[in-house]
Amino acid sequence: MSEIKATNVHWHKGNITPSDRERLNGHKGVCLWYTGLSASGKSSIAVRVEEKLFEHGIRTFVLDGDNIRHGLNKNLGFSPEDRAENIRRIGEVSKLFVDAGVVVCTAFISPYREDRDNARKIMKEGDFIEIFIKADLETCEERDPKGLYKKALSGEIKDFTGISAPYEEPLNPELIINTTDETDIDKNADKVVKYLMGKGYLHSEIKEKLTRAGY
Amino acid sequence: MSEIKATNVHWHKGNITPSDRERLNGHKGVCLWYTGLSASGKSSIAVRVEEKLFEHGIRTFVLDGDNIRHGLNKNLGFSPEDRAENIRRIGEVSKLFVDAGVVVCTAFISPYREDRDNARKIMKEGDFIEIFIKADLETCEERDPKGLYKKALSGEIKDFTGISAPYEEPLNPELIINTTDETDIDKNADKVVKYLMGKGYLHSEIKEKLTRAGY
Repeated sequence: MSEIKATNVHWHKGNITPSDRERLNGHKGVCLWYTGLSASGKSSIAVRVEEKLFEHGIRTFVLDGDNIRHGLNKNLGFSPEDRAENIRRIGEVSKLFVDAGVVVCTAFISPYREDRDNARKIMKEGDFIEIFIKADLETCEERDPKGLYKKALSGEIKDFTGISAPYEEPLNPELIINTTDETDIDKNADKVVKYLMGKGYLHSEIKEKLTRAGY
Repeated sequence: MSEIKATNVHWHKGNITPSDRERLNGHKGVCLWYTGLSASGKSSIAVRVEEKLFEHGIRTFVLDGDNIRHGLNKNLGFSPEDRAENIRRIGEVSKLFVDAGVVVCTAFISPYREDRDNARKIMKEGDFIEIFIKADLETCEERDPKGLYKKALSGEIKDFTGISAPYEEPLNPELIINTTDETDIDKNADKVVKYLMGKGYLHSEIKEKLTRAGY
Protein backbone atom coordinates (compact mmCIF):
# COMPACT_ATOMS: atom_id res chain seq x y z
CA MET A 1 0.00 0.00 0.00
CA SER A 2 2.85 2.43 0.66
CA GLU A 3 4.80 2.28 -2.59
CA ILE A 4 5.15 5.69 -4.22
CA LYS A 5 2.67 5.98 -7.07
CA ALA A 6 2.47 9.76 -7.26
CA THR A 7 5.43 10.59 -9.44
CA ASN A 8 6.17 13.81 -11.30
CA VAL A 9 4.58 15.88 -8.57
CA HIS A 10 6.31 19.23 -8.35
CA TRP A 11 7.67 20.20 -4.92
CA HIS A 12 7.87 23.76 -3.67
CA LYS A 13 7.99 25.39 -0.27
CA GLY A 14 5.11 27.42 1.08
CA ASN A 15 5.96 30.93 2.09
CA ILE A 16 5.13 30.60 5.78
CA THR A 17 7.79 28.67 7.64
CA PRO A 18 7.51 26.52 10.77
CA SER A 19 9.42 29.19 12.69
CA ASP A 20 6.86 31.82 11.57
CA ARG A 21 4.14 29.64 13.04
CA GLU A 22 6.18 29.02 16.18
CA ARG A 23 6.59 32.76 16.66
CA LEU A 24 2.84 33.34 16.29
CA ASN A 25 1.90 30.51 18.66
CA GLY A 26 4.64 30.77 21.26
CA HIS A 27 5.42 27.07 20.90
CA LYS A 28 6.67 24.53 18.39
CA GLY A 29 4.45 22.13 16.51
CA VAL A 30 5.09 18.61 17.79
CA CYS A 31 3.51 15.16 17.76
CA LEU A 32 2.77 13.49 21.09
CA TRP A 33 2.42 9.87 20.03
CA TYR A 34 0.73 7.84 22.78
CA THR A 35 1.01 4.07 22.48
CA GLY A 36 -0.14 1.27 24.76
CA LEU A 37 -2.66 -1.49 25.32
CA SER A 38 -6.39 -0.93 25.08
CA ALA A 39 -7.56 0.55 28.43
CA SER A 40 -4.02 1.53 29.40
CA GLY A 41 -5.17 5.14 29.63
CA LYS A 42 -3.91 6.68 26.36
CA SER A 43 -7.02 8.66 25.48
CA SER A 44 -7.73 9.84 29.02
CA ILE A 45 -4.21 11.16 29.41
CA ALA A 46 -4.11 12.65 25.89
CA VAL A 47 -7.36 14.50 26.46
CA ARG A 48 -6.24 15.75 29.90
CA VAL A 49 -2.91 16.93 28.48
CA GLU A 50 -4.77 18.75 25.73
CA GLU A 51 -6.97 20.54 28.27
CA LYS A 52 -3.95 21.61 30.28
CA LEU A 53 -2.08 22.88 27.23
CA PHE A 54 -5.10 24.57 25.67
CA GLU A 55 -5.87 26.36 28.93
CA HIS A 56 -2.49 28.07 28.57
CA GLY A 57 -2.97 29.10 24.96
CA ILE A 58 -1.23 26.19 23.26
CA ARG A 59 -2.72 25.08 19.93
CA THR A 60 -3.53 21.39 20.25
CA PHE A 61 -5.58 18.66 18.64
CA VAL A 62 -6.23 15.02 19.49
CA LEU A 63 -6.41 12.35 16.80
CA ASP A 64 -8.08 9.21 18.07
CA GLY A 65 -10.28 6.34 17.00
CA ASP A 66 -13.30 8.60 17.13
CA ASN A 67 -12.30 11.17 14.57
CA ILE A 68 -10.04 8.92 12.46
CA ARG A 69 -11.87 5.60 12.20
CA HIS A 70 -15.16 7.36 11.41
CA GLY A 71 -13.53 9.63 8.85
CA LEU A 72 -10.18 9.39 7.08
CA ASN A 73 -9.74 5.69 7.83
CA LYS A 74 -13.32 4.47 7.62
CA ASN A 75 -12.36 2.42 4.55
CA LEU A 76 -9.80 0.42 6.55
CA GLY A 77 -10.50 -2.72 8.51
CA PHE A 78 -8.34 -4.67 10.91
CA SER A 79 -6.27 -6.86 8.59
CA PRO A 80 -2.49 -6.58 9.05
CA GLU A 81 -2.23 -4.41 5.89
CA ASP A 82 -5.11 -2.18 6.93
CA ARG A 83 -3.69 -1.75 10.44
CA ALA A 84 -0.35 -0.68 8.99
CA GLU A 85 -2.05 1.70 6.56
CA ASN A 86 -4.15 3.05 9.45
CA ILE A 87 -1.04 4.01 11.39
CA ARG A 88 0.74 5.26 8.26
CA ARG A 89 -2.08 7.69 7.50
CA ILE A 90 -2.21 8.85 11.12
CA GLY A 91 1.53 9.52 10.96
CA GLU A 92 1.17 11.54 7.76
CA VAL A 93 -1.75 13.56 9.12
CA SER A 94 0.20 14.18 12.34
CA LYS A 95 3.09 15.49 10.29
CA LEU A 96 0.75 17.95 8.56
CA PHE A 97 -0.49 19.19 11.95
CA VAL A 98 3.09 19.53 13.20
CA ASP A 99 3.94 21.51 10.08
CA ALA A 100 0.88 23.67 10.81
CA GLY A 101 2.36 24.46 14.23
CA VAL A 102 -0.04 22.37 16.30
CA VAL A 103 0.72 20.11 19.27
CA VAL A 104 -1.01 17.05 17.84
CA CYS A 105 -1.76 14.13 20.14
CA THR A 106 -2.38 10.67 18.72
CA ALA A 107 -4.03 8.08 20.93
CA PHE A 108 -3.93 4.70 19.20
CA ILE A 109 -2.75 1.30 20.42
CA SER A 110 -0.23 1.32 17.51
CA PRO A 111 1.15 -2.06 18.62
CA TYR A 112 3.92 -2.48 16.04
CA ARG A 113 7.36 -0.95 16.48
CA GLU A 114 7.90 -0.69 12.74
CA ASP A 115 4.71 1.32 12.20
CA ARG A 116 5.59 3.75 15.00
CA ASP A 117 9.17 4.06 13.76
CA ASN A 118 7.89 4.86 10.29
CA ALA A 119 5.82 7.69 11.74
CA ARG A 120 8.90 8.93 13.57
CA LYS A 121 10.99 8.77 10.41
CA ILE A 122 8.79 11.05 8.32
CA MET A 123 9.08 13.81 10.91
CA LYS A 124 12.00 16.03 11.73
CA GLU A 125 14.24 15.16 14.69
CA GLY A 126 12.45 16.20 17.87
CA ASP A 127 9.03 16.52 16.21
CA PHE A 128 7.97 13.03 17.31
CA ILE A 129 7.62 12.27 21.03
CA GLU A 130 6.75 8.64 21.72
CA ILE A 131 4.89 8.26 25.00
CA PHE A 132 4.53 4.70 26.19
CA ILE A 133 1.45 4.32 28.37
CA LYS A 134 2.54 1.25 30.26
CA ALA A 135 0.01 -0.88 32.10
CA ASP A 136 -0.07 -4.54 33.05
CA LEU A 137 -2.34 -6.62 30.90
CA GLU A 138 -4.16 -7.70 34.09
CA THR A 139 -4.84 -4.06 34.97
CA CYS A 140 -6.24 -3.40 31.49
CA GLU A 141 -8.40 -6.54 31.60
CA GLU A 142 -9.83 -5.46 34.93
CA ARG A 143 -10.61 -1.93 33.71
CA ASP A 144 -12.05 -3.05 30.36
CA PRO A 145 -14.37 0.00 30.09
CA LYS A 146 -15.79 -1.06 26.72
CA GLY A 147 -15.94 -4.80 27.47
CA LEU A 148 -13.45 -5.46 24.67
CA TYR A 149 -11.15 -7.77 26.64
CA LYS A 150 -14.15 -9.85 27.61
CA LYS A 151 -15.11 -10.19 23.94
CA ALA A 152 -11.52 -10.91 22.94
CA LEU A 153 -11.15 -13.62 25.58
CA SER A 154 -14.41 -15.25 24.50
CA GLY A 155 -13.20 -15.15 20.89
CA GLU A 156 -15.91 -12.73 19.76
CA ILE A 157 -13.20 -10.22 18.73
CA LYS A 158 -10.27 -11.68 16.79
CA ASP A 159 -6.67 -10.40 16.76
CA PHE A 160 -7.04 -8.28 19.87
CA THR A 161 -3.81 -6.67 21.04
CA GLY A 162 -2.47 -8.32 24.21
CA ILE A 163 -4.82 -11.31 23.93
CA SER A 164 -4.59 -12.71 20.43
CA ALA A 165 -2.24 -10.22 18.77
CA PRO A 166 1.11 -8.90 19.95
CA TYR A 167 1.97 -5.55 21.51
CA GLU A 168 5.57 -4.55 20.86
CA GLU A 169 6.75 -2.25 23.64
CA PRO A 170 8.74 0.83 22.57
CA LEU A 171 12.49 0.34 22.97
CA ASN A 172 13.44 3.99 23.42
CA PRO A 173 10.32 6.06 24.02
CA GLU A 174 10.84 9.67 25.02
CA LEU A 175 8.51 9.14 27.97
CA ILE A 176 7.09 6.16 29.90
CA ILE A 177 3.98 6.63 32.00
CA ASN A 178 3.08 3.65 34.15
CA THR A 179 -0.65 3.71 34.79
CA THR A 180 -0.67 0.54 36.85
CA ASP A 181 1.53 2.21 39.48
CA GLU A 182 0.00 5.67 39.14
CA THR A 183 -3.68 5.78 38.28
CA ASP A 184 -4.20 9.54 38.74
CA ILE A 185 -4.85 10.94 35.25
CA ASP A 186 -3.98 14.45 36.36
CA LYS A 187 -0.57 13.49 37.72
CA ASN A 188 0.19 11.43 34.62
CA ALA A 189 -0.84 14.27 32.31
CA ASP A 190 1.44 16.63 34.25
CA LYS A 191 4.42 14.47 33.30
CA VAL A 192 3.79 15.22 29.63
CA VAL A 193 3.35 18.96 30.24
CA LYS A 194 6.59 19.03 32.22
CA TYR A 195 8.40 17.15 29.48
CA LEU A 196 7.38 19.80 26.95
CA MET A 197 8.43 22.56 29.37
CA GLY A 198 11.84 20.99 29.92
CA LYS A 199 12.73 20.28 26.31
CA GLY A 200 12.39 23.67 24.65
CA TYR A 201 9.06 23.16 22.90
CA LEU A 202 7.42 26.11 24.64
CA HIS A 203 8.49 29.74 24.56
CA SER A 204 9.22 31.53 27.82
CA GLU A 205 5.88 33.36 27.93
CA ILE A 206 3.88 30.13 27.96
CA LYS A 207 6.39 28.40 30.24
CA GLU A 208 6.06 31.23 32.75
CA LYS A 209 2.27 30.95 32.68
CA LEU A 210 2.54 27.21 33.33
CA THR A 211 5.05 27.77 36.13
CA ARG A 212 2.71 30.26 37.78
CA ALA A 213 -0.07 27.68 37.46
CA GLY A 214 2.05 25.25 39.50
CA TYR A 215 3.74 23.13 36.84
CA MET B 1 -12.91 2.14 -1.08
CA SER B 2 -15.30 4.23 0.96
CA GLU B 3 -17.54 1.58 2.48
CA ILE B 4 -17.48 1.65 6.27
CA LYS B 5 -15.28 -1.15 7.54
CA ALA B 6 -14.49 0.24 10.96
CA THR B 7 -17.47 -0.90 12.98
CA ASN B 8 -17.85 -1.04 16.76
CA VAL B 9 -15.72 2.05 17.20
CA HIS B 10 -16.91 3.96 20.23
CA TRP B 11 -17.74 7.66 19.70
CA HIS B 12 -17.20 10.29 22.35
CA LYS B 13 -16.75 14.04 22.35
CA GLY B 14 -13.45 15.65 23.22
CA ASN B 15 -13.59 18.17 25.99
CA ILE B 16 -12.44 21.17 23.99
CA THR B 17 -15.18 22.43 21.72
CA PRO B 18 -14.94 24.27 18.39
CA SER B 19 -16.18 27.41 20.13
CA ASP B 20 -13.36 27.13 22.69
CA ARG B 21 -10.88 27.08 19.82
CA GLU B 22 -12.68 29.94 18.08
CA ARG B 23 -12.44 32.02 21.27
CA LEU B 24 -8.70 31.34 21.57
CA ASN B 25 -7.98 32.10 17.90
CA GLY B 26 -10.38 34.97 17.26
CA HIS B 27 -11.79 33.20 14.21
CA LYS B 28 -13.67 30.09 13.18
CA GLY B 29 -12.07 27.02 11.65
CA VAL B 30 -13.12 26.78 8.01
CA CYS B 31 -12.14 25.05 4.77
CA LEU B 32 -11.34 27.20 1.74
CA TRP B 33 -11.69 24.66 -1.05
CA TYR B 34 -10.07 25.98 -4.24
CA THR B 35 -10.99 24.17 -7.44
CA GLY B 36 -10.09 24.83 -11.07
CA LEU B 37 -7.98 23.76 -14.02
CA SER B 38 -4.26 23.19 -13.79
CA ALA B 39 -2.53 26.61 -14.07
CA SER B 40 -5.75 28.45 -13.28
CA GLY B 41 -4.03 30.00 -10.26
CA LYS B 42 -5.34 27.95 -7.33
CA SER B 43 -2.06 27.49 -5.47
CA SER B 44 -0.81 31.03 -6.06
CA ILE B 45 -4.02 32.51 -4.70
CA ALA B 46 -4.24 30.02 -1.81
CA VAL B 47 -0.68 30.79 -0.73
CA ARG B 48 -1.23 34.55 -1.03
CA VAL B 49 -4.46 34.33 0.98
CA GLU B 50 -2.63 32.34 3.63
CA GLU B 51 0.07 35.01 3.89
CA LYS B 52 -2.51 37.76 4.25
CA LEU B 53 -4.45 35.87 6.91
CA PHE B 54 -1.37 34.70 8.81
CA GLU B 55 0.01 38.25 8.89
CA HIS B 56 -3.07 39.19 10.91
CA GLY B 57 -2.81 36.34 13.38
CA ILE B 58 -5.16 33.87 11.71
CA ARG B 59 -4.21 30.18 12.03
CA THR B 60 -3.97 28.78 8.53
CA PHE B 61 -2.56 25.86 6.60
CA VAL B 62 -2.42 24.97 2.91
CA LEU B 63 -2.94 21.41 1.70
CA ASP B 64 -1.67 20.96 -1.84
CA GLY B 65 -0.08 18.44 -4.13
CA ASP B 66 3.28 19.02 -2.50
CA ASN B 67 2.44 18.01 1.02
CA ILE B 68 -0.35 15.52 0.19
CA ARG B 69 0.89 13.60 -2.84
CA HIS B 70 4.33 13.11 -1.25
CA GLY B 71 2.85 12.03 2.07
CA LEU B 72 -0.67 10.90 2.97
CA ASN B 73 -1.62 10.07 -0.61
CA LYS B 74 1.66 8.80 -1.97
CA ASN B 75 0.11 5.35 -2.35
CA LEU B 76 -2.54 6.70 -4.73
CA GLY B 77 -2.16 7.01 -8.48
CA PHE B 78 -4.37 8.67 -11.06
CA SER B 79 -6.97 5.99 -11.81
CA PRO B 80 -10.59 7.13 -11.36
CA GLU B 81 -10.80 5.26 -8.01
CA ASP B 82 -7.53 6.69 -6.77
CA ARG B 83 -8.51 10.21 -7.81
CA ALA B 84 -11.75 9.90 -5.87
CA GLU B 85 -9.93 8.47 -2.84
CA ASN B 86 -7.38 11.29 -3.11
CA ILE B 87 -10.09 13.93 -2.81
CA ARG B 88 -11.95 11.94 -0.12
CA ARG B 89 -8.86 11.85 2.10
CA ILE B 90 -8.19 15.55 1.50
CA GLY B 91 -11.76 16.28 2.55
CA GLU B 92 -11.40 14.23 5.72
CA VAL B 93 -8.08 15.84 6.64
CA SER B 94 -9.57 19.27 5.96
CA LYS B 95 -12.40 18.46 8.34
CA LEU B 96 -9.88 17.59 11.05
CA PHE B 97 -8.14 20.93 10.53
CA VAL B 98 -11.47 22.77 10.64
CA ASP B 99 -12.29 20.95 13.88
CA ALA B 100 -8.88 22.03 15.17
CA GLY B 101 -9.87 25.66 14.53
CA VAL B 102 -7.64 26.23 11.50
CA VAL B 103 -8.47 28.04 8.25
CA VAL B 104 -7.39 25.19 5.98
CA CYS B 105 -6.89 25.89 2.28
CA THR B 106 -6.98 23.05 -0.24
CA ALA B 107 -5.54 23.68 -3.69
CA PHE B 108 -6.37 20.72 -5.94
CA ILE B 109 -7.95 20.55 -9.37
CA SER B 110 -10.70 18.38 -7.83
CA PRO B 111 -12.49 18.16 -11.18
CA TYR B 112 -15.53 16.13 -10.16
CA ARG B 113 -18.60 17.72 -8.64
CA GLU B 114 -19.47 14.57 -6.72
CA ASP B 115 -16.08 14.43 -5.00
CA ARG B 116 -16.27 18.10 -3.99
CA ASP B 117 -19.84 17.71 -2.81
CA ASN B 118 -18.82 14.72 -0.69
CA ALA B 119 -16.18 16.89 1.00
CA ARG B 120 -18.84 19.55 1.60
CA LYS B 121 -21.24 16.98 3.05
CA ILE B 122 -18.91 15.73 5.79
CA MET B 123 -18.48 19.26 7.15
CA LYS B 124 -20.92 21.41 9.06
CA GLU B 125 -22.97 24.04 7.21
CA GLY B 126 -20.72 27.03 6.56
CA ASP B 127 -17.49 25.13 7.22
CA PHE B 128 -16.89 24.48 3.52
CA ILE B 129 -16.30 27.40 1.17
CA GLU B 130 -15.98 26.35 -2.46
CA ILE B 131 -13.87 28.81 -4.44
CA PHE B 132 -13.98 28.32 -8.19
CA ILE B 133 -10.79 29.59 -9.78
CA LYS B 134 -12.16 30.17 -13.25
CA ALA B 135 -9.83 30.48 -16.22
CA ASP B 136 -10.23 29.78 -19.91
CA LEU B 137 -8.56 26.60 -21.05
CA GLU B 138 -6.62 28.70 -23.60
CA THR B 139 -5.28 30.91 -20.81
CA CYS B 140 -4.15 27.87 -18.82
CA GLU B 141 -2.53 26.28 -21.87
CA GLU B 142 -0.61 29.50 -22.53
CA ARG B 143 0.60 29.78 -18.93
CA ASP B 144 1.49 26.08 -18.58
CA PRO B 145 4.21 26.75 -15.97
CA LYS B 146 5.10 23.08 -15.54
CA GLY B 147 4.74 22.14 -19.23
CA LEU B 148 1.91 19.77 -18.34
CA TYR B 149 -0.52 20.90 -21.04
CA LYS B 150 2.19 20.40 -23.63
CA LYS B 151 2.72 16.85 -22.39
CA ALA B 152 -1.03 16.22 -22.24
CA LEU B 153 -1.57 17.50 -25.79
CA SER B 154 1.26 15.29 -27.08
CA GLY B 155 -0.27 12.31 -25.27
CA GLU B 156 2.67 11.92 -22.90
CA ILE B 157 0.31 12.49 -19.94
CA LYS B 158 -2.99 10.62 -20.08
CA ASP B 159 -6.32 11.71 -18.59
CA PHE B 160 -5.31 15.31 -18.11
CA THR B 161 -8.12 17.57 -16.88
CA GLY B 162 -9.36 19.91 -19.60
CA ILE B 163 -7.58 18.02 -22.37
CA SER B 164 -8.37 14.35 -22.06
CA ALA B 165 -10.44 14.30 -18.86
CA PRO B 166 -13.40 16.44 -17.88
CA TYR B 167 -13.57 19.39 -15.49
CA GLU B 168 -16.99 19.80 -13.96
CA GLU B 169 -17.51 23.45 -13.03
CA PRO B 170 -19.07 24.12 -9.62
CA LEU B 171 -22.79 24.87 -9.84
CA ASN B 172 -23.10 26.96 -6.70
CA PRO B 173 -19.64 27.88 -5.42
CA GLU B 174 -19.49 30.38 -2.59
CA LEU B 175 -16.99 32.42 -4.60
CA ILE B 176 -15.87 32.65 -8.25
CA ILE B 177 -12.53 34.22 -9.08
CA ASN B 178 -11.90 34.73 -12.77
CA THR B 179 -8.17 34.73 -13.37
CA THR B 180 -8.45 35.21 -17.11
CA ASP B 181 -10.09 38.61 -16.57
CA GLU B 182 -8.06 39.54 -13.47
CA THR B 183 -4.52 38.22 -13.35
CA ASP B 184 -3.36 40.14 -10.27
CA ILE B 185 -2.85 37.53 -7.54
CA ASP B 186 -3.03 40.13 -4.83
CA LYS B 187 -6.39 41.48 -5.93
CA ASN B 188 -7.76 37.97 -6.33
CA ALA B 189 -6.54 36.95 -2.88
CA ASP B 190 -8.21 40.04 -1.41
CA LYS B 191 -11.57 38.74 -2.61
CA VAL B 192 -11.20 35.71 -0.38
CA VAL B 193 -10.12 37.76 2.63
CA LYS B 194 -13.08 40.07 2.15
CA TYR B 195 -15.44 37.11 1.86
CA LEU B 196 -14.27 35.83 5.24
CA MET B 197 -14.62 39.33 6.73
CA GLY B 198 -18.15 39.69 5.44
CA LYS B 199 -19.50 36.32 6.49
CA GLY B 200 -18.79 36.19 10.20
CA TYR B 201 -15.78 33.90 10.20
CA LEU B 202 -13.53 36.44 11.90
CA HIS B 203 -14.01 38.08 15.28
CA SER B 204 -14.11 41.86 15.50
CA GLU B 205 -10.54 42.22 16.75
CA ILE B 206 -9.08 40.55 13.66
CA LYS B 207 -11.59 42.26 11.37
CA GLU B 208 -10.55 45.64 12.73
CA LYS B 209 -6.89 44.86 12.13
CA LEU B 210 -7.70 43.88 8.55
CA THR B 211 -9.79 47.02 8.05
CA ARG B 212 -6.93 49.18 9.31
CA ALA B 213 -4.65 47.34 6.86
CA GLY B 214 -6.90 48.48 4.02
CA TYR B 215 -9.17 45.49 3.45
